[in-house]
Amino acid sequence: MAAGMNNRAIRLAHGGGGRYTQQLIEDVLLPILGNPVLDPLDDSAVFPMPGARLAFTTDSFVVHPIFFPGGDIGRLAVCGTVNDLAAVGAKPVFLSLGLILEEGFSMDDLKRIALSVKSTADEAGVRIAAGDTKVVEKGHCDQLFINTAGIGVFDGTHPVSGSGAKPGDRILVNGSLGRHGMAIVTARTELGFSDRILSDAAPLGLLVETVLKSVPEVHAMRDATRGGLAAVLNEIAGRSGVGMELDEETLPLDEDVRGACELLGFDPLYVANEGVMVFFIPENRAGDALSAMKTSPYGRSATAIGRVTADSEGRVVLKTRLGSRRIVDMPSGEQLPRIC
Amino acid sequence: MAAGMNNRAIRLAHGGGGRYTQQLIEDVLLPILGNPVLDPLDDSAVFPMPGARLAFTTDSFVVHPIFFPGGDIGRLAVCGTVNDLAAVGAKPVFLSLGLILEEGFSMDDLKRIALSVKSTADEAGVRIAAGDTKVVEKGHCDQLFINTAGIGVFDGTHPVSGSGAKPGDRILVNGSLGRHGMAIVTARTELGFSDRILSDAAPLGLLVETVLKSVPEVHAMRDATRGGLAAVLNEIAGRSGVGMELDEETLPLDEDVRGACELLGFDPLYVANEGVMVFFIPENRAGDALSAMKTSPYGRSATAIGRVTADSEGRVVLKTRLGSRRIVDMPSGEQLPRIC
Repeated sequence: MAAGMNNRAIRLAHGGGGRYTQQLIEDVLLPILGNPVLDPLDDSAVFPMPGARLAFTTDSFVVHPIFFPGGDIGRLAVCGTVNDLAAVGAKPVFLSLGLILEEGFSMDDLKRIALSVKSTADEAGVRIAAGDTKVVEKGHCDQLFINTAGIGVFDGTHPVSGSGAKPGDRILVNGSLGRHGMAIVTARTELGFSDRILSDAAPLGLLVETVLKSVPEVHAMRDATRGGLAAVLNEIAGRSGVGMELDEETLPLDEDVRGACELLGFDPLYVANEGVMVFFIPENRAGDALSAMKTSPYGRSATAIGRVTADSEGRVVLKTRLGSRRIVDMPSGEQLPRIC
Repeated sequence: MAAGMNNRAIRLAHGGGGRYTQQLIEDVLLPILGNPVLDPLDDSAVFPMPGARLAFTTDSFVVHPIFFPGGDIGRLAVCGTVNDLAAVGAKPVFLSLGLILEEGFSMDDLKRIALSVKSTADEAGVRIAAGDTKVVEKGHCDQLFINTAGIGVFDGTHPVSGSGAKPGDRILVNGSLGRHGMAIVTARTELGFSDRILSDAAPLGLLVETVLKSVPEVHAMRDATRGGLAAVLNEIAGRSGVGMELDEETLPLDEDVRGACELLGFDPLYVANEGVMVFFIPENRAGDALSAMKTSPYGRSATAIGRVTADSEGRVVLKTRLGSRRIVDMPSGEQLPRIC
């Protein structure tokens, strides 16, 4: 190591493909993330993968701040991709991890995030199979960005699409709304909320597996991330050619989130979640699906929030507490940037 | 569209998950990149994938400038991941595409890059199966970063590792060295080179397939990207527990690259390539491997550059034109940043 070189911070040389890249991978990342699939460090991971169908997805994470109440960008990067795989009915198996680091980024923070990736991956039952690290000059990215791509298998389950909602379906969610977005927003503000709102970031693969085992006839699923519940419902309504009716009274909202939304002028229907899956279930199976969810730590406040209708195609309507009806439109214009 | 809204540039709303994200995907990206696997736009792509073993890899691309002689970040993002799959002997099949865009980035440039992704993917015989788009505030990334992850299958081939080089093996490369790195460097300088150096960025899946069909007993392979040939040889020497001897006279170097390296003080052994695969082949099959490479448009200047030795374990030695010997060490210290 050159004299005076600071090994507590990321340097451009860590991205150069030479000795420092090797050191970063072997001394910092591999001791935390290593496993038999990743360890060979070949250009690609190679693994047995029997089965006739796979799921494949990708997601980049640029959340700011990178540490927030209830999680960090590492936990988020695992949960986001795990949940995208779960949303099509697949069992998440392998993730890739692409890091873009800013020159000068703290090595300690990198380790902290790698540990978070590792513990979340362990919780979700997935392995980091492949990785890549790039470094850009100070000021050319913001601390770090993470991309995770993921592979899932259909292991006793079948693919569930986002366009299969049918009139009469009950709309279920596994947990309360708006936690992740409001955790980020309140972490950014100087308002000094007395209690920090914790993000709901959670890997939902096991919860979804439990629901699919109990109720294989799930018509559609989607995790309600950017754009919140409103974006997901509008998308599925449009793609399924159906309408939807929500009952405001049944929407699960925690008091801290409700208070922060009121204070800051957010509609919780439009606030991002990172641990909320939306299910469309035939009415006569909705109770079973709710019971299945409640066996999961992330499904204890599972609840039905509305139903799919045959009229008003592609439109989502909210029945308010006062009995009036308003349209819940697709979010447009500026959303909160860098929520995930 | 709000009055006065500029639709020629990326806005934060394009990353918000609402209407503008939908428009960006459906109006700009999908018309270029769409295919039956990507088109359903579910949270994950689902596809049949028979076969017992898969390859999986990821790579992020932060190259600057994003357009350069001989290619652009889109072509690079496809080639890099295709070549990582090819390097383990897999046939590249599916890619994911994660875009991180800077607010204000030109929509026309985004289309140009999407078209480049598409044409390179077509050339390589791979499909974009999944995608994601994020937008960060102006100044928080540099134009755009791309992550591609990829899945490959072993279709009549077997996995080739980077640690299988054996004493006696000939070291072969499919093309001339240092083109990509010097294309980037000269594109960045103001020196006004009379002829632009073209990057060698190329998808090598078909070339590798041809070699493996002709010579299944390839002992090791690796594409020589960041850190150049020197990094790859040192890595494989270390992991295979062998030495290597290169013959300077046989190193394929184009005149323009040689001239620019001399002028700017670069050693071409350390300059990145994006279309150079290094093969380790039993001596008695080297001729067949070279003949196979030469049938590919990217293998016309294929040549043998050295051999694997049993002594000087882990060390790479260059026999110079003057007859002296010097050690080709692993690159360390600052490399050229953002070469890929």
